Amino acid sequence: MLENDLILKAAACQAVERTPVWLMRQAGRILPEYRKVRSSVSGFKELVTTPELACEVTIQPVDILGVDAAIIFSDILVVPEAMGLPYELIEAKGPLFLETIESQADVEKLRVAEGPELQYVYDALKLVKKELNNRIPLIGFAGAPWTLLSYMVEGQGSKTFSKARKFLYQQPEAAHLLLDKIADSTINYLKSQIAAGADMLQIFDSWAAVLSAEQYRVFGLPYLEKICNAIDEVPIIVFPKGANYTFDELKELNCQVIGVDWNASTEDVRNLQAAGKAVQGKYDPAGLYASRKEIAKGAQQMLASMGPVGHIANLGHGVYPDTPLDNVRCFIDTIKEYQHVVSV
Amino acid sequence: MLENDLILKAAACQAVERTPVWLMRQAGRILPEYRKVRSSVSGFKELVTTPELACEVTIQPVDILGVDAAIIFSDILVVPEAMGLPYELIEAKGPLFLETIESQADVEKLRVAEGPELQYVYDALKLVKKELNNRIPLIGFAGAPWTLLSYMVEGQGSKTFSKARKFLYQQPEAAHLLLDKIADSTINYLKSQIAAGADMLQIFDSWAAVLSAEQYRVFGLPYLEKICNAIDEVPIIVFPKGANYTFDELKELNCQVIGVDWNASTEDVRNLQAAGKAVQGKYDPAGLYASRKEIAKGAQQMLASMGPVGHIANLGHGVYPDTPLDNVRCFIDTIKEYQHVVSV
Repeated sequence: MLENDLILKAAACQAVERTPVWLMRQAGRILPEYRKVRSSVSGFKELVTTPELACEVTIQPVDILGVDAAIIFSDILVVPEAMGLPYELIEAKGPLFLETIESQADVEKLRVAEGPELQYVYDALKLVKKELNNRIPLIGFAGAPWTLLSYMVEGQGSKTFSKARKFLYQQPEAAHLLLDKIADSTINYLKSQIAAGADMLQIFDSWAAVLSAEQYRVFGLPYLEKICNAIDEVPIIVFPKGANYTFDELKELNCQVIGVDWNASTEDVRNLQAAGKAVQGKYDPAGLYASRKEIAKGAQQMLASMGPVGHIANLGHGVYPDTPLDNVRCFIDTIKEYQHVVSV
Repeated sequence: MLENDLILKAAACQAVERTPVWLMRQAGRILPEYRKVRSSVSGFKELVTTPELACEVTIQPVDILGVDAAIIFSDILVVPEAMGLPYELIEAKGPLFLETIESQADVEKLRVAEGPELQYVYDALKLVKKELNNRIPLIGFAGAPWTLLSYMVEGQGSKTFSKARKFLYQQPEAAHLLLDKIADSTINYLKSQIAAGADMLQIFDSWAAVLSAEQYRVFGLPYLEKICNAIDEVPIIVFPKGANYTFDELKELNCQVIGVDWNASTEDVRNLQAAGKAVQGKYDPAGLYASRKEIAKGAQQMLASMGPVGHIANLGHGVYPDTPLDNVRCFIDTIKEYQHVVSV
């Protein structure tokens, strides 16, 4: 029994006494306590692969910021690595794959991750679960197949992901084989996360917006569907960042919550909610650079526009590392104190 | 009198015998002839600032690809430079400003470009105009104020432009002063381009999509309006890449053509056309990596969906440098050969 299950209720579009809130990247560089742990290890990957440390930084924002959910500290690229494609994280540069996927043969060499390869994540989840002691829900997560493919083909971040998009156009069969292997790996991974204690899951499709609606229909959605249809133990949040073109199709997806960013309109949100989806988001993370007066006003406006039912307050992207901590607190506190005006 | 004024007719939503076509970045690395000229000089900026060379590469795609318009070979960052903020272009990295804008004082130090600072662009336009000999229209261009601000504050390209967005939230007055100076500089610059022979103008708002609708309404649109209202000599194409959230407001803008990318829906396009705007775009440049059979099919589908009136065929972004030239030809030729089925 969770003491605070506001997020699970909001995900189910049930009435809540207030809108729940957490922040993408809440465990991270905004917290001095995180930076201290981070500076004690050789690299980001050591944090990710050491369950005690991953647990520690996962819990930090729960205690310090009072958010309504913890999200396991990890990285979406652990799945490609478990499939046989190791990655590195270069400070201030981002992820780097030394080998990339270029052909059908490369895809065939990859294995479907069975789950146990990522035991360190499950160990971290179990530690967090124990530490949380049922105070709030714990969110597990994974990258969406298209987003993982884009890194595996591109080898690193990109403004256009034109190499990954070229792969879809030039080698569609290899792309489908890869997406299917990623989806199967992800299902195994997420099922193991549930077994380890995850109360909810988020699927990050960070690069959804670089595809056209037509391409997303072929290379994005079917694999999200496969994952969502395989998991019915816990609620799923699907976050196809910026891909507003696919909102209508997302209504049919077998998930409870759709993540949106600051480019989603009030009408978009209402339409998703009317179709039975809860919506997570959508505050502009750059908005947390404003004065606290402006932040409070902005957060209140968002809450009013999203309504009292079917909304999990969050940013539309990870919190930026140099955001003043007091501004983050102001955002969270404003949401926790807000009283929706409900007409009766 | 232009021999081929299809683009001007399409911009005015007049009937045309076929849909006109040109490509963003048609003068560039897709052409071996361009690469030859490029390798003969020390850097990209030498090409931009040497009128004879800029003219040569501007004309290349006209002769080689048979497009329906030439666009002057230049860079949007010449305007910040004319205002007092010099830039460099680092091969394979992109633009770099050694000094960036951080404060109101920095903005105050900048001058409004009067126009003559960029004489090399007008000289290039005049040479191109002469070389074209009225075969097809010549397009001039500039960056939109928000996009130029984002480079001037950020100093370089970015995935999030969070530093530029922080500037808007933390120093809105300085931002407005800067945007206004950029808009005034741009008006002077574009008027001089018209005097030098530009038959049409395009304003690139390449980073429009990173702003929220609310922010774009405050920091983007008013300065596009200022520019569009100051220029009535030639048609203007406004291209706020990916910012589909602003389509409704763009209908009111005093310009003839709206550029769209591959995320714009058929409904978006129809709505803009119904409001009297011509639409430019919207083919996915990664689609030119597909087989020529697929490209021909895709181009035909686009033409059918955009209709016979009020459409300038183009990509939704600059053509990627490694696109096979025969694929580019296939796209252009398919469009030029397409016969719209017009119901009578």
